[in-house]
Amino acid sequence: MVDNCSPDSVARSVREYEGVTRKRGIGELIECLRITDQPDVVASFGEDAAVIRQDDLALLLAADGIWSKLMEADPFWAGYCAVLVNVHDIAAMGGRPLAMVDVLSFTSGDLRNEVTRGMQAASEQFGVPIVGGHLHPDTPYSVIDLAIMGSMPIDDVLYSSTAEAGDRVVAAIDLDGRVHPSCLMNWDSVTMKSAGEVRRQIGVMQELASRHLVTAAKDISNPGVIGTLGMLLETSKKGAEVELDAIPRPDLQANGLTFEHWVRMYPGMGFIMTCHDEHTEEVCRLFEETGMTARPIGWVNDSRSLSVSYEGVNTSVFDLETEGIMRIINTTDLV
Amino acid sequence: MVDNCSPDSVARSVREYEGVTRKRGIGELIECLRITDQPDVVASFGEDAAVIRQDDLALLLAADGIWSKLMEADPFWAGYCAVLVNVHDIAAMGGRPLAMVDVLSFTSGDLRNEVTRGMQAASEQFGVPIVGGHLHPDTPYSVIDLAIMGSMPIDDVLYSSTAEAGDRVVAAIDLDGRVHPSCLMNWDSVTMKSAGEVRRQIGVMQELASRHLVTAAKDISNPGVIGTLGMLLETSKKGAEVELDAIPRPDLQANGLTFEHWVRMYPGMGFIMTCHDEHTEEVCRLFEETGMTARPIGWVNDSRSLSVSYEGVNTSVFDLETEGIMRIINTTDLV
Repeated sequence: MVDNCSPDSVARSVREYEGVTRKRGIGELIECLRITDQPDVVASFGEDAAVIRQDDLALLLAADGIWSKLMEADPFWAGYCAVLVNVHDIAAMGGRPLAMVDVLSFTSGDLRNEVTRGMQAASEQFGVPIVGGHLHPDTPYSVIDLAIMGSMPIDDVLYSSTAEAGDRVVAAIDLDGRVHPSCLMNWDSVTMKSAGEVRRQIGVMQELASRHLVTAAKDISNPGVIGTLGMLLETSKKGAEVELDAIPRPDLQANGLTFEHWVRMYPGMGFIMTCHDEHTEEVCRLFEETGMTARPIGWVNDSRSLSVSYEGVNTSVFDLETEGIMRIINTTDLV
Repeated sequence: MVDNCSPDSVARSVREYEGVTRKRGIGELIECLRITDQPDVVASFGEDAAVIRQDDLALLLAADGIWSKLMEADPFWAGYCAVLVNVHDIAAMGGRPLAMVDVLSFTSGDLRNEVTRGMQAASEQFGVPIVGGHLHPDTPYSVIDLAIMGSMPIDDVLYSSTAEAGDRVVAAIDLDGRVHPSCLMNWDSVTMKSAGEVRRQIGVMQELASRHLVTAAKDISNPGVIGTLGMLLETSKKGAEVELDAIPRPDLQANGLTFEHWVRMYPGMGFIMTCHDEHTEEVCRLFEETGMTARPIGWVNDSRSLSVSYEGVNTSVFDLETEGIMRIINTTDLV
């Protein structure tokens, strides 16, 4: 049971959370950049990584930047997260991360040293090298942008756009962590883990992909567990009903968290997936073996609305048909 | 004959050019980011693109950012160049560019529209799609960072670190262009060309690679033709002597250019290569077929110094042993 949980209040706090509202510009941007006649591009915007076909191989490509807010709060953690979110983008597709390139801008040498120390630590821990990039040596701002390449068999790729009505929604999160001391919206379950532990957790996604155990997947990023599920449903053109009480959560009181705070957090290691009901148990088992907590939290439906319920009270969080989160107008036109 | 050409003055102006001096932070940065035990990483920092081995395939990955100066001067051209330099990074290795991802930050919607219009134009012209990325919707600065992925047979990859003493130095530049109206240091030979023309020019590098006609290659970037050759020689641990009068150049007077200005310019389409002397003619012929001007401009030697000469007067531009440009201390340790 969650203390003092009101689905209305959870819905509002997720909907209005900056981590969610910041996604609104994506749809418009895609319209500007799109070009035609690209038969090898299997997936692009709206997925965690783009998929380029090369015979039987899927080449994966993704990029992410770090909020300047995070860099100001904790440059080591910002550098670490830049790597972490990129590795997650490839893992979410079921792929093997191969290498990263960076474009870095720093206002000071001290900042640069802290950021690159964080990047190097995560790169070493996850075993994904930074192999090149570009340095702006003389900027009045500090920015970390990172891109990552991965690969996998083309027939095994996990997309976020392929959830089906009747699927179970499964959330997997590593609860063995802490609120990050310099960033209240980040749940750090990673910096204290061994390379072996985090690589096994990432490896579960590769196994789910090769065994075709899930129908859609996405890593839980800044929008949090409910916001990320909303993005998955938006690209899938589906809806879902989620039981708030089923969402994996750490001891909230001991960590000084409310439930509303928790569901908006970026977890160091978290994935949201959909699967056929008969695979739910096996999917959860694979995550639990690595120390993560995985639970079925709801069902996919055809409503194009994401709603949450608690003790029989049900509230809509996102109307994905008329509003959406990323506001991608027509994903079928994208590739 | 070049009017009023003093090799001393050319050497100094290249050595002190911001496009060259901005490269100095690279070596130190590499030291911070390096991790060990990466057998699939065939090449990384110091090359135009990193090379990751995947069986017989080389996967290429590169990233580049655009100077804020350029974005202020001309946002359309800045967006266009972001794509151009990335495509060149893959072309310089002899690879086929497959797809790009961006990380964008904009202070205003108008700026975003102009920049993305430039990116889209170049993406369409070169036939390389932008397939995803990240948008920072709320930054106090504007930044375009782009990463690109390419592929090619692993045995055909062109490196910049493999020039050999006794090789010819060949420069190939498309002289059919103009000083860019908003950026005096850019020679625009591309925006007015058809998709077919620029793709054929890029295609020459793929042919040189598959026929193993050159020993080392690099695209001519911000440091200009002499500065870029210096970087190639630095990673190759070689030197060279260049005949200034042999460097391909447009009608300088008609374009309001001095020779010193010209050799520091970023050409819209330019490559610097080394090759065995017997291949010089064929290498030049392939470029000339696409409307570019290609000439042997000097010889590689073991001196680890790049010097230029004109009418018998010889001057050192870069001491690559004790100083260097990127200041990469020991490239053999990098991979």
